[in-house]
Amino acid sequence: MSAGARPDSGWRRVVILGVSPELDAGEFAAKRVLGDRVSVSADLVADGQDVITGEILLRRPRRDREERPDDVWDASAPLSALPNDRHSGSFDVDQLGRWQFTIRAWVDQYATWQRGLERKVRAGQNVDVDVLIGAEVLRAAAERASGEDRRALDAAAGQLANTREAASARARAASSLELGQLAARYPDLENATRYRRWLPLWVDRERARFSSWYEFFPRSTGEDGQHGNFETAIARLPYVASMGFNVVYLPPIHPIGQTFRKGKNNSATATESDVGSPYAIGSAEGGHKSVHPALGSLEDFRRFTAEAARHGLEVALDIAFQVTPDHPYVKEHPEWFRKRPDGSIQYAENPPKKYQDIYPFDFESEAWWSLWQELASIFRFWIEQGVRIFRVDNPHTKSLAFWQWCIAELTREHPELIFLAEAFTRPKLMYLLAKLGFTQSYTYFTWRNTGRELSEYVRELTAAPVNEFFRPNFWPITPDILPEHLQYAARPAFALRLMLAATLSSNYGIYGPAFELMDNVPRPGAEEHNDNEKYELKAWQLERSDSLRAFIARVNAIRQSNTALQQNSIAFHTSTNELLLCFSKRSADGENVVLVVANMDVHSPQAGFVDVDVRELEVNAVFGPHASPAVSSPPVASPPAPPARELQLHDLLSDARYFSQERRLFVRLDPASAPAHIFRLRRHARTENDFDYFL
Amino acid sequence: MSAGARPDSGWRRVVILGVSPELDAGEFAAKRVLGDRVSVSADLVADGQDVITGEILLRRPRRDREERPDDVWDASAPLSALPNDRHSGSFDVDQLGRWQFTIRAWVDQYATWQRGLERKVRAGQNVDVDVLIGAEVLRAAAERASGEDRRALDAAAGQLANTREAASARARAASSLELGQLAARYPDLENATRYRRWLPLWVDRERARFSSWYEFFPRSTGEDGQHGNFETAIARLPYVASMGFNVVYLPPIHPIGQTFRKGKNNSATATESDVGSPYAIGSAEGGHKSVHPALGSLEDFRRFTAEAARHGLEVALDIAFQVTPDHPYVKEHPEWFRKRPDGSIQYAENPPKKYQDIYPFDFESEAWWSLWQELASIFRFWIEQGVRIFRVDNPHTKSLAFWQWCIAELTREHPELIFLAEAFTRPKLMYLLAKLGFTQSYTYFTWRNTGRELSEYVRELTAAPVNEFFRPNFWPITPDILPEHLQYAARPAFALRLMLAATLSSNYGIYGPAFELMDNVPRPGAEEHNDNEKYELKAWQLERSDSLRAFIARVNAIRQSNTALQQNSIAFHTSTNELLLCFSKRSADGENVVLVVANMDVHSPQAGFVDVDVRELEVNAVFGPHASPAVSSPPVASPPAPPARELQLHDLLSDARYFSQERRLFVRLDPASAPAHIFRLRRHARTENDFDYFL
Repeated sequence: MSAGARPDSGWRRVVILGVSPELDAGEFAAKRVLGDRVSVSADLVADGQDVITGEILLRRPRRDREERPDDVWDASAPLSALPNDRHSGSFDVDQLGRWQFTIRAWVDQYATWQRGLERKVRAGQNVDVDVLIGAEVLRAAAERASGEDRRALDAAAGQLANTREAASARARAASSLELGQLAARYPDLENATRYRRWLPLWVDRERARFSSWYEFFPRSTGEDGQHGNFETAIARLPYVASMGFNVVYLPPIHPIGQTFRKGKNNSATATESDVGSPYAIGSAEGGHKSVHPALGSLEDFRRFTAEAARHGLEVALDIAFQVTPDHPYVKEHPEWFRKRPDGSIQYAENPPKKYQDIYPFDFESEAWWSLWQELASIFRFWIEQGVRIFRVDNPHTKSLAFWQWCIAELTREHPELIFLAEAFTRPKLMYLLAKLGFTQSYTYFTWRNTGRELSEYVRELTAAPVNEFFRPNFWPITPDILPEHLQYAARPAFALRLMLAATLSSNYGIYGPAFELMDNVPRPGAEEHNDNEKYELKAWQLERSDSLRAFIARVNAIRQSNTALQQNSIAFHTSTNELLLCFSKRSADGENVVLVVANMDVHSPQAGFVDVDVRELEVNAVFGPHASPAVSSPPVASPPAPPARELQLHDLLSDARYFSQERRLFVRLDPASAPAHIFRLRRHARTENDFDYFL
Repeated sequence: MSAGARPDSGWRRVVILGVSPELDAGEFAAKRVLGDRVSVSADLVADGQDVITGEILLRRPRRDREERPDDVWDASAPLSALPNDRHSGSFDVDQLGRWQFTIRAWVDQYATWQRGLERKVRAGQNVDVDVLIGAEVLRAAAERASGEDRRALDAAAGQLANTREAASARARAASSLELGQLAARYPDLENATRYRRWLPLWVDRERARFSSWYEFFPRSTGEDGQHGNFETAIARLPYVASMGFNVVYLPPIHPIGQTFRKGKNNSATATESDVGSPYAIGSAEGGHKSVHPALGSLEDFRRFTAEAARHGLEVALDIAFQVTPDHPYVKEHPEWFRKRPDGSIQYAENPPKKYQDIYPFDFESEAWWSLWQELASIFRFWIEQGVRIFRVDNPHTKSLAFWQWCIAELTREHPELIFLAEAFTRPKLMYLLAKLGFTQSYTYFTWRNTGRELSEYVRELTAAPVNEFFRPNFWPITPDILPEHLQYAARPAFALRLMLAATLSSNYGIYGPAFELMDNVPRPGAEEHNDNEKYELKAWQLERSDSLRAFIARVNAIRQSNTALQQNSIAFHTSTNELLLCFSKRSADGENVVLVVANMDVHSPQAGFVDVDVRELEVNAVFGPHASPAVSSPPVASPPAPPARELQLHDLLSDARYFSQERRLFVRLDPASAPAHIFRLRRHARTENDFDYFL
């Protein structure tokens, strides 16, 4: 309202502030997944002490682009009062896409009147005139009602105004809860306040929040050192599925350029036999909409996708918006690339590094709009082939405005799409990409090593506002990153990192078979694997006896059957031994509570107490006679605590069961046998105290 | 941007987020005072790694109501980069009223180019083509420049492109800081990002932040029990001024109603001699624009105001928007009051309490707009009489929309106005009134008693976002409130509360002479004074020997000469004795640092260590040979600490001086002599270490 302007109504009593969730004044959408109950809250502040009430107004997703008039919506949900002028309500989201919500609030006149009357009655005051005021309020509500409700309100108003009856009797009738609820259904909304913005809420499918990724290079699936193809990659799918993953992610599958092709270990010169990096996209054989001939045809790719689906695996494709000098775009659309004063095309560089095999697109081209259209058409092409998940390479070096436009445009048509941002960059840029539309994001997990580093980082990611828009996807390694703590590391270190990624984050992934086979040799001076698969074919020994395959399968099975691990709300617990990292996750309904104690020392056993007040975990799940509790060994009890409900701690890794009713647990973990306890908690269904004869 | 819409430019690289100060998405103004340096910061996030720069755009206050087009502003101020994509800048506010600011940001092309060039040069790479790119950037800048700058940029571009010179030499010239700064003055702003909102910033005069209020009832200034008037009130002014106050605040001065007039101690029946409550406004003799005949004429009031000004005192008038049944409005404007079904006018009530002497205005009247106009005209009337400060009675029971409109309307014409909200109500409503326009606010200080309660509350008030819009005004007592801890309390308790109010808050006030004369008797069962001045004339014994007058004068003098106490940024320090409350305040320039240690025990001496690392207080003020340090008694040193700069602690209450270079101070305070140390800190100008021969 501009200073001194006359408002259209002077009667608007309620001011709405502090609406949650709201990101950047409604510029970006909070994110949820299908089936979620969305909780909305706000401060509803009015003068005086009247009873304030309100509702959430809802707009369901629509596929057209039209902005709806401000006062149009599809549904509403009630708010109820919390302390300190806060009100909250919720609604369930049963449709993918862009919802909108806002809040409307007003004075509940009849409830306000009822409260005043009640006080006067209690004080023994005369209420002759007050009941007549109540009758007026009811009559006004009746005028807004119709049918049976109108008749009931009119009758109640008539009774209240009936001076032949004693005022005290009428006051009693007027105080009824039912009458209050009936009147509340017909509020005077003319002077209701509507929050000034419609707030966006994006609803994804469940896979956006819970996914287990397995990345592999299809070209390394050939036999006897041959170049693999989609046929041999299909043969790899049962192996991937057996570990319990649900997303299979392929690095770029397009023709690879020849000019400045990189050799093994990223050497500047390639030999005849070098296969090149799949990120060097484009040759005479095609570009981003083509399949590398050695991998097969588009038809072969579609078959791969269909076979993956049969194994419960969704295919994620890698989208890297860059080309080699051989890419058809370079000739067909020179306007999309930057020309240097000497007439050459600007290749990628990050001084002093040069990437002469890569031309970036010039987003500051005069032809930006045709470039945007073409890039979006690449996604559309692969969507037509059945792909619904995209891993986007280095999105932070491309136009942010493009991403916002492109993802909005694509998800408007296909709200089931998932985009994983591979942006290892500055924190605010990573967060912004998530706000602009990316569904999931790579994170700094790869470099967070100690318990303190991890808990601090995970706390940041899972607290508001970050948890409203940023969905972490934890990767222990990638083809680009073999972090220092896994260089020359042994099996326990790989097992620990897998377990941490898979339990700290509901989305995680591994680059295999390098990971399960614990490829731990770095290229000297680099933070990536030696003889990196990006530059050569690899022949992995999948059946090696020390493979982590079975362990990974166990962890993924635990994730699959514990909904607490399929979301990211988390609590960290302290420990007497800083090498024991302890945290718990709880499903929204409390049915599933998982407590993890990890030994961060990959060399030696560690023991100590962890401070977990098991009584505070609000475990709803019970164990009955069907459970067969094992005899308890450690955890054992810490110093005496007040008696409480006993909990069963079922270690899902070892299948051992323990009991505790303590505020501390004693834990001892040997990295040689397991990196952690992953306890599922259940409480006794009943104790003798639950029966009547104890009361 | 709606989903999928084509933006007007695809080149806009920077996204602006997290602008500070911004309240409720720019709906409300952050507050500052004249002469402040306003610090503004924001996240400027762009793709890639280019050098981002930006500026603050400024609109100065204007008195008209017209909204300016989005792309119109008066001035700008540069931003500079902080870590983590944050940028900040500042500007000085030299005019009262409603400023607006926003942020514009863009890629600094030449600086980005310079940085890349520097890296290549350092790596020994060929830069032949790169310098030509630099020349292009400079030439584009030249085209945006004119005059000398244009010639200089053109010349630099020419030199860079001059292939007869060695590229390395040209690269050196192109790297100069000066050339970078020159080019930065002519950025390509076509693709700059402007933040989406203009943010309001309200600038008050200094009195809004630093004020010392003295409230008294002019009618109690008469001699020999006579009804006082403005003449006798003028005679009281030297007394008030001698204590160092700068605002003198009068309860309502209007004619008082007869109907249902309250007697002494709020009794429901008044006798002939009862003077009534000044809050029962309106009689046949006039209403809100009239002066009570017994106090004198309007002319007398103006004389009182002028005399007060002569004593350095500004008059604050009490505005209570309510009337008695005798107020002229009741007959002239029955439409402004609520009629009950029996035809009577609704009096004020808060069941079970009834206030039959008071009619509230009905802000839900059909005639709300004429009511608003009239209420605003009451302020205007007193503004014409020279009043610039208003204490508003119970604003939280009146329309919030009215306050927002009314204060905006009045301050647009008179930005020097100050409104103190007397809203002892729910916290969010108190904060909202401050956002809607009230300059200062009463607080819960009156009831916060222990050191912990006080430090928690003051922390809340002085932290963002509250400190951006809410200016507390601390009152130990009011005519409505004699808090429990001052009932039957002795002198040390009153001295402590005065000292706390005056040092914890830059705005504070007392209700006198009840306060300095320590009127400590409550009306039985009530939290207010017995024989309350609201209902009767009081004859105060101003010259009583135990009066706190001299102590108050000393504290006000300390406030006057220490700018640290004229603002609210504060740090609390821990203590080994929880009865010692310790805090420090520091002026923006560090010249004035005040450290307060208060003994919260008003009965017994208390001693202990307070943890103040004096070296961390960033004291800029020095003491030279002109100071005559007294020999140090306590505070004495705590266990050994590393050597550090010695600080002088000058107790402004006792005038004693101490020295310390410790991280702890030992303190002992006896409530019988002083409630606190109020130290001013100064550091040694030089020590022997400052001289060259030590280096």
